[in-house]
Amino acid sequence: MPKNARKRSKKAGLPPGTPVYIGEHKTGEVKITVTVYNETTFQEKEVRTIEEALPLLDTTAIKWINIDGVHQLKIIEEVGKRFHLHPLTLEDVMNTDQRPKVEDFGDYLYIVLKNLSHNNQNDAMEAEQISIVLGEDFVITFQEDKKDTFAHTRERIRGGANREKIMKTDFLAYSLIDEIVDNYFTVIEWFGEKIELLEEELVARPTPKIMEAIHRLKGSVFSLRKSVWPLREVINGLEREGSRLISESTRIYIRDVYDHTIQVIDTIEIFRDMLYGMIDIYLSSISNRLNEVMKVLTIIATIFMPLTFIAGVYGMNFKFMPELEWHWGYPGIWLIMLTIGTSMLIYFRRKKWL
Amino acid sequence: MPKNARKRSKKAGLPPGTPVYIGEHKTGEVKITVTVYNETTFQEKEVRTIEEALPLLDTTAIKWINIDGVHQLKIIEEVGKRFHLHPLTLEDVMNTDQRPKVEDFGDYLYIVLKNLSHNNQNDAMEAEQISIVLGEDFVITFQEDKKDTFAHTRERIRGGANREKIMKTDFLAYSLIDEIVDNYFTVIEWFGEKIELLEEELVARPTPKIMEAIHRLKGSVFSLRKSVWPLREVINGLEREGSRLISESTRIYIRDVYDHTIQVIDTIEIFRDMLYGMIDIYLSSISNRLNEVMKVLTIIATIFMPLTFIAGVYGMNFKFMPELEWHWGYPGIWLIMLTIGTSMLIYFRRKKWL
Amino acid sequence: MPKNARKRSKKAGLPPGTPVYIGEHKTGEVKITVTVYNETTFQEKEVRTIEEALPLLDTTAIKWINIDGVHQLKIIEEVGKRFHLHPLTLEDVMNTDQRPKVEDFGDYLYIVLKNLSHNNQNDAMEAEQISIVLGEDFVITFQEDKKDTFAHTRERIRGGANREKIMKTDFLAYSLIDEIVDNYFTVIEWFGEKIELLEEELVARPTPKIMEAIHRLKGSVFSLRKSVWPLREVINGLEREGSRLISESTRIYIRDVYDHTIQVIDTIEIFRDMLYGMIDIYLSSISNRLNEVMKVLTIIATIFMPLTFIAGVYGMNFKFMPELEWHWGYPGIWLIMLTIGTSMLIYFRRKKWL
Amino acid sequence: MPKNARKRSKKAGLPPGTPVYIGEHKTGEVKITVTVYNETTFQEKEVRTIEEALPLLDTTAIKWINIDGVHQLKIIEEVGKRFHLHPLTLEDVMNTDQRPKVEDFGDYLYIVLKNLSHNNQNDAMEAEQISIVLGEDFVITFQEDKKDTFAHTRERIRGGANREKIMKTDFLAYSLIDEIVDNYFTVIEWFGEKIELLEEELVARPTPKIMEAIHRLKGSVFSLRKSVWPLREVINGLEREGSRLISESTRIYIRDVYDHTIQVIDTIEIFRDMLYGMIDIYLSSISNRLNEVMKVLTIIATIFMPLTFIAGVYGMNFKFMPELEWHWGYPGIWLIMLTIGTSMLIYFRRKKWL
Amino acid sequence: MPKNARKRSKKAGLPPGTPVYIGEHKTGEVKITVTVYNETTFQEKEVRTIEEALPLLDTTAIKWINIDGVHQLKIIEEVGKRFHLHPLTLEDVMNTDQRPKVEDFGDYLYIVLKNLSHNNQNDAMEAEQISIVLGEDFVITFQEDKKDTFAHTRERIRGGANREKIMKTDFLAYSLIDEIVDNYFTVIEWFGEKIELLEEELVARPTPKIMEAIHRLKGSVFSLRKSVWPLREVINGLEREGSRLISESTRIYIRDVYDHTIQVIDTIEIFRDMLYGMIDIYLSSISNRLNEVMKVLTIIATIFMPLTFIAGVYGMNFKFMPELEWHWGYPGIWLIMLTIGTSMLIYFRRKKWL
Repeated sequence: MPKNARKRSKKAGLPPGTPVYIGEHKTGEVKITVTVYNETTFQEKEVRTIEEALPLLDTTAIKWINIDGVHQLKIIEEVGKRFHLHPLTLEDVMNTDQRPKVEDFGDYLYIVLKNLSHNNQNDAMEAEQISIVLGEDFVITFQEDKKDTFAHTRERIRGGANREKIMKTDFLAYSLIDEIVDNYFTVIEWFGEKIELLEEELVARPTPKIMEAIHRLKGSVFSLRKSVWPLREVINGLEREGSRLISESTRIYIRDVYDHTIQVIDTIEIFRDMLYGMIDIYLSSISNRLNEVMKVLTIIATIFMPLTFIAGVYGMNFKFMPELEWHWGYPGIWLIMLTIGTSMLIYFRRKKWL
Repeated sequence: MPKNARKRSKKAGLPPGTPVYIGEHKTGEVKITVTVYNETTFQEKEVRTIEEALPLLDTTAIKWINIDGVHQLKIIEEVGKRFHLHPLTLEDVMNTDQRPKVEDFGDYLYIVLKNLSHNNQNDAMEAEQISIVLGEDFVITFQEDKKDTFAHTRERIRGGANREKIMKTDFLAYSLIDEIVDNYFTVIEWFGEKIELLEEELVARPTPKIMEAIHRLKGSVFSLRKSVWPLREVINGLEREGSRLISESTRIYIRDVYDHTIQVIDTIEIFRDMLYGMIDIYLSSISNRLNEVMKVLTIIATIFMPLTFIAGVYGMNFKFMPELEWHWGYPGIWLIMLTIGTSMLIYFRRKKWL
Repeated sequence: MPKNARKRSKKAGLPPGTPVYIGEHKTGEVKITVTVYNETTFQEKEVRTIEEALPLLDTTAIKWINIDGVHQLKIIEEVGKRFHLHPLTLEDVMNTDQRPKVEDFGDYLYIVLKNLSHNNQNDAMEAEQISIVLGEDFVITFQEDKKDTFAHTRERIRGGANREKIMKTDFLAYSLIDEIVDNYFTVIEWFGEKIELLEEELVARPTPKIMEAIHRLKGSVFSLRKSVWPLREVINGLEREGSRLISESTRIYIRDVYDHTIQVIDTIEIFRDMLYGMIDIYLSSISNRLNEVMKVLTIIATIFMPLTFIAGVYGMNFKFMPELEWHWGYPGIWLIMLTIGTSMLIYFRRKKWL
Repeated sequence: MPKNARKRSKKAGLPPGTPVYIGEHKTGEVKITVTVYNETTFQEKEVRTIEEALPLLDTTAIKWINIDGVHQLKIIEEVGKRFHLHPLTLEDVMNTDQRPKVEDFGDYLYIVLKNLSHNNQNDAMEAEQISIVLGEDFVITFQEDKKDTFAHTRERIRGGANREKIMKTDFLAYSLIDEIVDNYFTVIEWFGEKIELLEEELVARPTPKIMEAIHRLKGSVFSLRKSVWPLREVINGLEREGSRLISESTRIYIRDVYDHTIQVIDTIEIFRDMLYGMIDIYLSSISNRLNEVMKVLTIIATIFMPLTFIAGVYGMNFKFMPELEWHWGYPGIWLIMLTIGTSMLIYFRRKKWL
Repeated sequence: MPKNARKRSKKAGLPPGTPVYIGEHKTGEVKITVTVYNETTFQEKEVRTIEEALPLLDTTAIKWINIDGVHQLKIIEEVGKRFHLHPLTLEDVMNTDQRPKVEDFGDYLYIVLKNLSHNNQNDAMEAEQISIVLGEDFVITFQEDKKDTFAHTRERIRGGANREKIMKTDFLAYSLIDEIVDNYFTVIEWFGEKIELLEEELVARPTPKIMEAIHRLKGSVFSLRKSVWPLREVINGLEREGSRLISESTRIYIRDVYDHTIQVIDTIEIFRDMLYGMIDIYLSSISNRLNEVMKVLTIIATIFMPLTFIAGVYGMNFKFMPELEWHWGYPGIWLIMLTIGTSMLIYFRRKKWL
């Protein structure tokens, strides 16, 4: 699970501010989507290098550059040069083990988020790092994968509902963050269903497998928490600390995302409590089963031990055992044994063991 | 339990500020109650649309609009337009998964609360979202259901005790909040009784069913907590942060509601501790029962195993076993066996196992 | 335990600021003691109504009105009218489920405390609510019962040690609070003794009864904590926040009470830890006992099962069993059985089971 | 353990500011050591009463009065009168159940500390209260016992290393505090050794005695913690809050003591964690032992029960049992029984029970 | 584990500000490396005494003195004299049990860190104390060992990448700190691998050895935590509190190290949770195994006890037992016994015990 620890050591010893891609090995091409728009114009173009994009960027309209893939140093450096980004920003963009954070570099805000999604193939949660650079008249977004994370915002720019509001970069950035946070609810739902299924199974049949499943799920909840908790500070920071890049009217919307984040965190905490409660139930049901097993053993032993003893007594070979000669001895001893057995059963029923 | 997660994903991808009803599917009509009053006048009218209400609202008297049902977008939007509410407010009104919060929109305060009640039919706790919009000369309340939550305040306006105080909107809003918080005590009482019943049952007969009941109750306490904890901040925020909409004299009353909230929270914490303590008792009583069972088994085995062995010895078919020939052999062996059995019993009594 | 929840719901639906007595039903008379004194004069009188007291109160000397019993609405209201108390203060005085708190109403400070005492009859802790109203030249104290809680302060006013200091109302109020906090130490002592007794018993003989006793005691510690924790804030608030009603020289004394409160809280925390530790010991001693029981069973079974088997073998009725014919067969088999038994015992002693 | 609770109740009901000795009954003489020194002079004298000391104190040199024994009211009061100490200070000096604290009385700082030491006789930790009064040109120290706690500082004043620094009262006070905190490390070492010994014993042989020892040690760690935790605030308070009695150059040294205190606290927290970990190990090793015991029982029973059954079968007295007549019946049955026994053993070895 | 406690007591009783080496006994020579450089010059020399270094230090270029070995008082004192270090700084340098901290002495900042590394020989974590003194134009680093901790920074000064940035002492100090924090990731990785290995082993075969390994690892995580947690404050302190020695441009880099520290702390917290989870799994798997063992025992006993009883009955020697005479008695009894055994097996299979 502590994968980041593993990957980070690649960087040990490099001078600070050196961008190095940390993540799974990737070779695919990087996709750059440049969107330039304002109230009147709209242009969208997919390019392979920043040079191709340069003619487009020479305008006062809002520029949104979305880069899918952060494993090619050259592209990241070119973007950095064109928009005067600090070397540490570039380093952080490529280091995909960042904690969610927001940093104010004066000319721009640098925001790191985790985009969570549910991978249907292996039924697991996936986290992808998204960096957002918010400048006066541009927004740059860096994604690890080519997933179309920002489809709804793109749709709105192209002419969807509320298009007029998105005419400021701060609202564009907010809109992107909002889309990411909305995804969390999908992941949370999937989690909730997994936990509920597990809970039903646990009550029906508590096996060691379930204990391991609970443990694994607890691990996932912990790493989910690790992605979402710092987000709280990040978004709170965006709202409270007055960067001049964020206007008053957008702040109200950011407060709204903040509320959503708190809701996600609340649900995660409830998940945690539920999982701990399930461990309690598991342990108590194991103890309970042991009790059941021991009761069966004890009942059997308590009934048959005295009876076997009696049978043993009359199996002795003493010369002088008067009972053996009696005509009613054998049926009599059966009667005695039945009486003992029955009274034992009654005793256990009284003790509520049966 | 994490129901909100489930419902929220309906909204993923919609532009922010889009009001969408999140909740169980509802088709019933929406009931709008308009109350217009001041020291001298009083008017109350039930209408179906905002247009019907418009003539009433054109006055400087206090206007209280109560809307039962938030699932009809059109009505919410009309109210929003008439009272100049922010799109995010309308979105939050319809999204019934809000966390209790207070937001200052300058012209009005937007307060979200949860109204808790005990449903007698399925013996469960029910939570309903209540939104209160407090403006200069109007108060708008949105409820999910048609329950008459604010009966007492309505009664007072109509001419009950302390009618003179309610002549300001801030006091009206306080009065509504107070009525909601008062309901919490009823739910808390019902909870307390459930816990006490469970505790008695637990001491009398600890079964796995009780463990599950404790677990379920713990879940309810957690979700109760989730509704009440943020309330603390909300009411504290109303008292401390000086919105010009709340007068000094009303603040003292809000402090009073704050005290009640703290009392509710304290009691919830005690419930939590009690439930955790009950799990401890349950686990220890299972262990204890196992001990009891094992003692019975051990006593039986310890008494009858040696005896059966002795009987076995004299059941052997060796040619030369002098004891078998003795005349007092059989009664003698009975004597020995009785002695062994009795001394075992004495031993166990000494060990306090009996 | 959550008694307050139960009683509070009496008030649901009443307009705020309505004083309603919440507590056990009481019918006894209310005792009003008026003490008027300064450096030169001293007057003490027991009255039944406020009117009787009015002539006494018309002076610039310090006026201390002590009211034993808060269940008679009329008296509370008369006091409120005479000293211009806010309706919420009167409501809080009669609602005996308050949390300790201090409220600054400008003209007076309203302080709520819990007076704890140990009831010898049922060996339980009792809590009584005490309200103190501290004004410029008067102090009003409301008690639930007729217990003489403030005997020592009264004695000092009548002419005891340090009489000169008590010539200001703030010092009088401090003196009353100090007397209440001093009582806590008595309750704490009684608790400490109970815990120690239980601990001794636990080590000597861990029974399920003790587990329940620990659970009950934990409940009491929790409710003790609930009474004392808020006191910390209350007294800290009195010391720090500069109400003009409290002079600098008295503040030093209040800091002293604060230290005492912290000491009480520290001890309560230690009690909690001790009780949790006792649950650990209980559970481990149950497990240990089970081990002991199982060892006895295993030793018995391990010794007698092989022996019974051997006896069984020579009890078989095969025609051709040469050993049966041997002259030394019977003693030989005894020798073998004794050897087996003894070596088993040696084995168990080596394993430290014996 | 909660001894202070027990002793404190002696004071209930006394007027505040009344010095009463709280502690074990003591009758020994009180030893007063007066040290008067500056760069040029040095005088040290042991006296019985303050009057004897008066001639010495009439100087501008630094005056250090060390009082061993706080159980004689008269001496404490005389000191109080001579140095104008507040009645509450005198009360706190004699009440040896104080929590570590620092109080600024304007003319002097009053510091309460606990001096910890390890008593070799009963191998237990001992705590003694030390009060330090730091004035402009005097330092008064009150100790409970006649132990020479401040030997090193005294040595330095007499002419040891760094004598020049101790020429200010604040540095003298710091030096005394430093000496007390240094003692904590000795106690911590002794604790560490005890825990390590217990840990070794626990791994070797987990008995209920060890559980009780862990419990006792946990209690000691809690009370150690109670003595040291408040110290953190105390020393932090001395460093941060600018009392004019403490010079800038001494503050750096106090920061150093603060670091030591944090180190002690860190180690105590590690002790706590270790002790909790030991309880886990103890419980798991009990469970493990039970498993071992049960395996032995099960192996024995599983081998001998079927065998005894077979022997029982051929001990039946049916007329027509052909096997009994066979010549190879008896050796054949032995073969079968050996086969069963051996295959059971192989089965258990496969299951890793052996 | 609490080694520092053990070593610290060496110092008890010494006057404050006395440098005493606390650590393992060392006799090796101390290595002093002096590096003097600026944009144009670069000089590096290894010396044995400070006198040898003096000619080098008489320059306005940046001076970095690295001292490997803090056990020789004389060298430390000479360095202190040359650079005007406070006696407490020297004391802290030699006391290798410091907690990470930063102290502002006006002319210089004194920073204490722990350098963590993984010792391959004994597969354990090693901590070494590193002191950094940051002055206007000099940086002094004290290490315990001769390990070349700062190889990368040294390389960069000699002419590596980004050489221009390191031309200020604050960036040099940052660069050294960054190199230390980078090492933490290597230790964290090694930890992560150990935990994962242990987890796999735990699931495969839970033995008491694993419980001890978990306990030991938990201890290591605690001491790792103790080294890293205070670092957070230290680096935060460097960034926030504006010492004039740290320039604005370097602050951004320090914020970067801060993020790394938080990442390390997050991972440590996850390790803790994982280890606690493993204890839960261990305990539950022990309980589970006990259940398995008990089921085997119960099945065997439940099948063979009734059968043995039946065999015993027909081994009785009663004169009149008609069944014994029947021709089909023996095969009949076999049939009965087989039926009983089979139905028991079916019963257990139904109960899912088989």
